[in-house]
Amino acid sequence: MKIVVDAMGGDHAPANIVAGVVDAVKELPVTITLVGISDRVNAELARYSYPKDRIEVVHASEVVDMDDNPLDVIRRKKDCSITVGVNMLKNGGYDAFVSAGNTGALVAASTFYLRMIEGVDRPGIGLVIPQVNGAAFLIDVGANAEPKPEHLYQYGLMARAYMQIVMGRENPSVGLVNIGEEEGKGSGFDKQSYDLLKEKVPGFLGNIEPNKIFANKADCIVCTGFVGNVIIKLSEGLMESAGSVLKREIKKNPLAMVGALLMMGALKALKKHGDYSEYGGAPLLGVNGIVMKCHGRSSPKAITNAIRATMREVDHNILDKIKASLK
Amino acid sequence: MKIVVDAMGGDHAPANIVAGVVDAVKELPVTITLVGISDRVNAELARYSYPKDRIEVVHASEVVDMDDNPLDVIRRKKDCSITVGVNMLKNGGYDAFVSAGNTGALVAASTFYLRMIEGVDRPGIGLVIPQVNGAAFLIDVGANAEPKPEHLYQYGLMARAYMQIVMGRENPSVGLVNIGEEEGKGSGFDKQSYDLLKEKVPGFLGNIEPNKIFANKADCIVCTGFVGNVIIKLSEGLMESAGSVLKREIKKNPLAMVGALLMMGALKALKKHGDYSEYGGAPLLGVNGIVMKCHGRSSPKAITNAIRATMREVDHNILDKIKASLK
Repeated sequence: MKIVVDAMGGDHAPANIVAGVVDAVKELPVTITLVGISDRVNAELARYSYPKDRIEVVHASEVVDMDDNPLDVIRRKKDCSITVGVNMLKNGGYDAFVSAGNTGALVAASTFYLRMIEGVDRPGIGLVIPQVNGAAFLIDVGANAEPKPEHLYQYGLMARAYMQIVMGRENPSVGLVNIGEEEGKGSGFDKQSYDLLKEKVPGFLGNIEPNKIFANKADCIVCTGFVGNVIIKLSEGLMESAGSVLKREIKKNPLAMVGALLMMGALKALKKHGDYSEYGGAPLLGVNGIVMKCHGRSSPKAITNAIRATMREVDHNILDKIKASLK
Repeated sequence: MKIVVDAMGGDHAPANIVAGVVDAVKELPVTITLVGISDRVNAELARYSYPKDRIEVVHASEVVDMDDNPLDVIRRKKDCSITVGVNMLKNGGYDAFVSAGNTGALVAASTFYLRMIEGVDRPGIGLVIPQVNGAAFLIDVGANAEPKPEHLYQYGLMARAYMQIVMGRENPSVGLVNIGEEEGKGSGFDKQSYDLLKEKVPGFLGNIEPNKIFANKADCIVCTGFVGNVIIKLSEGLMESAGSVLKREIKKNPLAMVGALLMMGALKALKKHGDYSEYGGAPLLGVNGIVMKCHGRSSPKAITNAIRATMREVDHNILDKIKASLK
């Protein structure tokens, strides 16, 4: 299997990307092509020993910044790692593209160069999120901030296919994020989305209120990219803030400090349970290629896990199967 | 001080409402008028001893269900506790109205009967939310799911006034919830809202990403009612789910159970820190009257605390001061 990885994407690139890729080729049956400023990538690679025939470097002279406008990237940064990587995937010989770079630019380049699959109008980024028991698939978490209702039912169909194919879930259920549970709640957009999901998506259960998003209500959870992005970032921030408050409270009392030590395993298990980097990546669904988006703050481990998740998608032939499921 | 309380609103009405009101008149210098089906309210009141001259009951023959359409309530349920209560406030002799009932109906009745104050086009529900240190004011959490950009800057102005007047915060800062921090992020709506807030709201800091909402970034945090509702419900659900997972992990290991006992104080402090019922109510701002919305699941303690928070608003003459601040 041959995967192209954006060496320049994310807050800690190329260091964390290269470190994660080195671990990936040691652990997994994969060959990686790193795309980026070759001097910098090679300098990082020189720090590790690894099977040399399993990592190659392709030079791309430009770097996309986190605040670059996506359309400007398409128009002007034609030799950036995202554009070069997406085009390598398009031109064949590679199975997937993985990037922790600028989300908007990755979505725009993937849409522009790879094009959409039949039956899908706009791409969506999905994410496997923890539930009290097991996991669910949340889509969209940030590709499409202002979707139309039609985009949401298409997300529902792709999410179902993903959960069936990659996670082996039988007949997955689908819910729509809304601020009330009853049919007819919310704005015109929410009602139209509800009606379309009800009409077109098997296993549609209705609305899911935000307090039930982690409560095993549905296998697939559909929302706008704005709301999905709020859900994942808020969850991340809330757990961090709660952790800070808990640490402060523990420090007030020596017995609580002993208690925290005794509970460390359980606290670590909770942290691991909610840690998206355990899964590693968020598939960009709807474009005609397997593209995986990683968190900008990805650790080396998150990059390795994203490559593992990407390999699972390739192994399951996810692209052809999603295409077939939409017919 | 005389406060009207909706006896029939919320999941546990009238029991929890009456219990909270009884505690309020015992603890606070307030007289309460309970509005609702008088037989049921009096039956609850009969369970308690309290200063009889401090609670009166006004009969309202109809009850608003949680899934009633707000406009239908205005048109058809003219003798429901929300409509009767709001009109008592409008007609004078009372200082405020408190309800844990149907949010949409409360917003619609308050807007329709009380009308808006000058300079505000649509009401917003604010909520004091915990920060790692202290508190911030989040608005809107569910009055106005699809606001216009103008509504958001008006929320910003009212939030500043609230934090100054009620919480004594000097020169409060204001942030806009957006999926990216940089100016120019998001949809057309987000950009227009940003521009208006920048132009019209003193102390505007720019966008706040959802992972920073509890991180003491701003004194006032502005968003659409849909997003605000997602923020508060998701936070509630996430802490509950994390609690379930932690309990399960603790039960796997006897030492962790001992640890949890030793840490109980710190865990309880964390829970209390994040518990909205500690504050008790969410002011409906922008209408020409002091209206407080309580959580549908309010405990008696949450009702008592909401009455306490409402009294603070009345004491601070919040309505006149917000009006003045908008001139």
